[in-house]
Amino acid sequence: MPQKVRIALDAMGGDIGASVVIPGAAISLSRHPDTEFLLFGDRAVIDVHLAKHPAMKAASRVIHTNVAVSMNDKPSQALRRGRKTSSMWLAIDAVKKGEADVAVSAGNTGALMAMARFCLRMLPGIDSPAIAGVWPTVRSDSVVLDLGATIGADAEHLTALAVMGSAMARVLFDLERPTVGLLNIGVEEVKGGEQIRKAAEMLRAMDLPNLDFIGFVEGDGIGKGAADVIVTEGFSGNIALKTAEGTARQISEYLRSAMARSWRSRIGYLFARQAFKSLRDKMDPGKSNGGVLLGLNGIVVKSHGGTDADGFAYAVDVGYEMVRYDLLTKINQMLNRDGSALVTAPAAQEAVS
Amino acid sequence: MPQKVRIALDAMGGDIGASVVIPGAAISLSRHPDTEFLLFGDRAVIDVHLAKHPAMKAASRVIHTNVAVSMNDKPSQALRRGRKTSSMWLAIDAVKKGEADVAVSAGNTGALMAMARFCLRMLPGIDSPAIAGVWPTVRSDSVVLDLGATIGADAEHLTALAVMGSAMARVLFDLERPTVGLLNIGVEEVKGGEQIRKAAEMLRAMDLPNLDFIGFVEGDGIGKGAADVIVTEGFSGNIALKTAEGTARQISEYLRSAMARSWRSRIGYLFARQAFKSLRDKMDPGKSNGGVLLGLNGIVVKSHGGTDADGFAYAVDVGYEMVRYDLLTKINQMLNRDGSALVTAPAAQEAVS
Repeated sequence: MPQKVRIALDAMGGDIGASVVIPGAAISLSRHPDTEFLLFGDRAVIDVHLAKHPAMKAASRVIHTNVAVSMNDKPSQALRRGRKTSSMWLAIDAVKKGEADVAVSAGNTGALMAMARFCLRMLPGIDSPAIAGVWPTVRSDSVVLDLGATIGADAEHLTALAVMGSAMARVLFDLERPTVGLLNIGVEEVKGGEQIRKAAEMLRAMDLPNLDFIGFVEGDGIGKGAADVIVTEGFSGNIALKTAEGTARQISEYLRSAMARSWRSRIGYLFARQAFKSLRDKMDPGKSNGGVLLGLNGIVVKSHGGTDADGFAYAVDVGYEMVRYDLLTKINQMLNRDGSALVTAPAAQEAVS
Repeated sequence: MPQKVRIALDAMGGDIGASVVIPGAAISLSRHPDTEFLLFGDRAVIDVHLAKHPAMKAASRVIHTNVAVSMNDKPSQALRRGRKTSSMWLAIDAVKKGEADVAVSAGNTGALMAMARFCLRMLPGIDSPAIAGVWPTVRSDSVVLDLGATIGADAEHLTALAVMGSAMARVLFDLERPTVGLLNIGVEEVKGGEQIRKAAEMLRAMDLPNLDFIGFVEGDGIGKGAADVIVTEGFSGNIALKTAEGTARQISEYLRSAMARSWRSRIGYLFARQAFKSLRDKMDPGKSNGGVLLGLNGIVVKSHGGTDADGFAYAVDVGYEMVRYDLLTKINQMLNRDGSALVTAPAAQEAVS
């Protein structure tokens, strides 16, 4: 029997903290009984919630702290106030110390990134972190990164994103050689975009065994599932994610008001209720909750701050799978191969251009 | 009675050319009888379609050319082959010569931008063009720019985009002082993004009478209608637009398959058919067809290449309104004020920071 997956939870993170974190983790535990938890936060509050979830209680150890990072703290404030003491820091630090395999927090994104970077440090050859998420598509799911950790990217960083995203897709979707596309805009010969074109040349030249580079993908290719992994720098990645969420909400609103307009459409709604439920499930952002911070010496998963227990459970599931299927080892293996490939890339590039 | 609006049409542009352009223009003419058209393209083909639309025929003059820019031509090819001879070039040139007030083409975007820029030249103080479009929102409509003309933008260019977008919103939505937001990502203290922050300071310091700067807007704010004008550089603007289109298509597909799954939901669909029709109308990208090329000494409107006659009619409508309500004059007035405001901005910026 393999070792248990040890998950460090920031029990105070998110809009409502332990009352979502503990029931959420309990749901994930029921799906993955080979998990154990370190819970960081206010013991009195945590114990109240653990009392309602005996299986979770049996799988958990509580480490008390009464310092919590607020959702409004700036990253610099969070570091100043919460370093070495806050529930968020301690959860990340447990990964650094080897006491946990992954940390999961619903706390504020900026603070989490700053603390994770400060505590865990970057992997050799990667200069800044990325956030990767799972994006539901018409075909199935895709990994999209960077969703907003780092603004701008040169060709080397885009290539590293492609490698890390590919490792994540191998873990999550059980693929040998995921397809990878670079997000780009359709108009040719527009000024700018040199770094993206250069990254495409590098990825082609590297011809990695675990990464099938398919070229450029436009924004509407994401929802089509044009590639298993979609790569872009953090500004446009975040804009794409939020715009898609906004569009989904907008259409829900149109649909609601259209269905309420006449007695006919209200009857139609009654008949089609089950269909609408399945549509809502498909569109539920909670089902793709769990952004993975990539590029660090350790795995940290970010849950939405406003999620419910079901949504938080998905984020814990993501953390579980990243550990169980060895994300970090896969990234490091690909990066080592990459490390050399990146160094020799200029030569390789000359060969193809 | 005011002068007629003179519209130059690239009758060969788009996936199917005259068979969409002429019926589309005829629809727009029925809504705006004070229009006259210059039709550039193959006279034999044009005449066949004009014969079916007598009112359109009466309002049109045909200028023959058998050179057409292909949808696959690269901008440089299009310029080499089609300069001074193609239907696209001649339509733009009619604006330059003062024979038309606006040119409308469904031809390829890259070629249209290159020709418009080459023929009309940039407005003083603007260094590269932008494409602005109308984005349907929950609240009403917003102007979003740049949708992909120019990758990257410094603070001065973002400020110019804000001014031009605001002028367009005044024309289209009949607003005295449109609200303007800069697209940004939520995470604070992320590296990069200095130019966006600087643009925000400049817009605040300028405090223009016809532009109400409201600060940063995230991607999900576009669909909410968070501002009348949303400003971003062309890469992220194009990604946002295409991602929203892809998401809308994805949800349509989910909805279709959900409604087809059981006899109950199929009955529901029959009852709610009218509601679904109004939903489809709301989501119809044709209804927001017509991207306006901004920053040039003249007005050029780009229609989707794959649009139908109704969609092309909307693009012609946009061209009509831009002329009737003096877009260029408004932009120039604001830019002149801006011109000085931009020069004094560094001082103003120091004053606020």
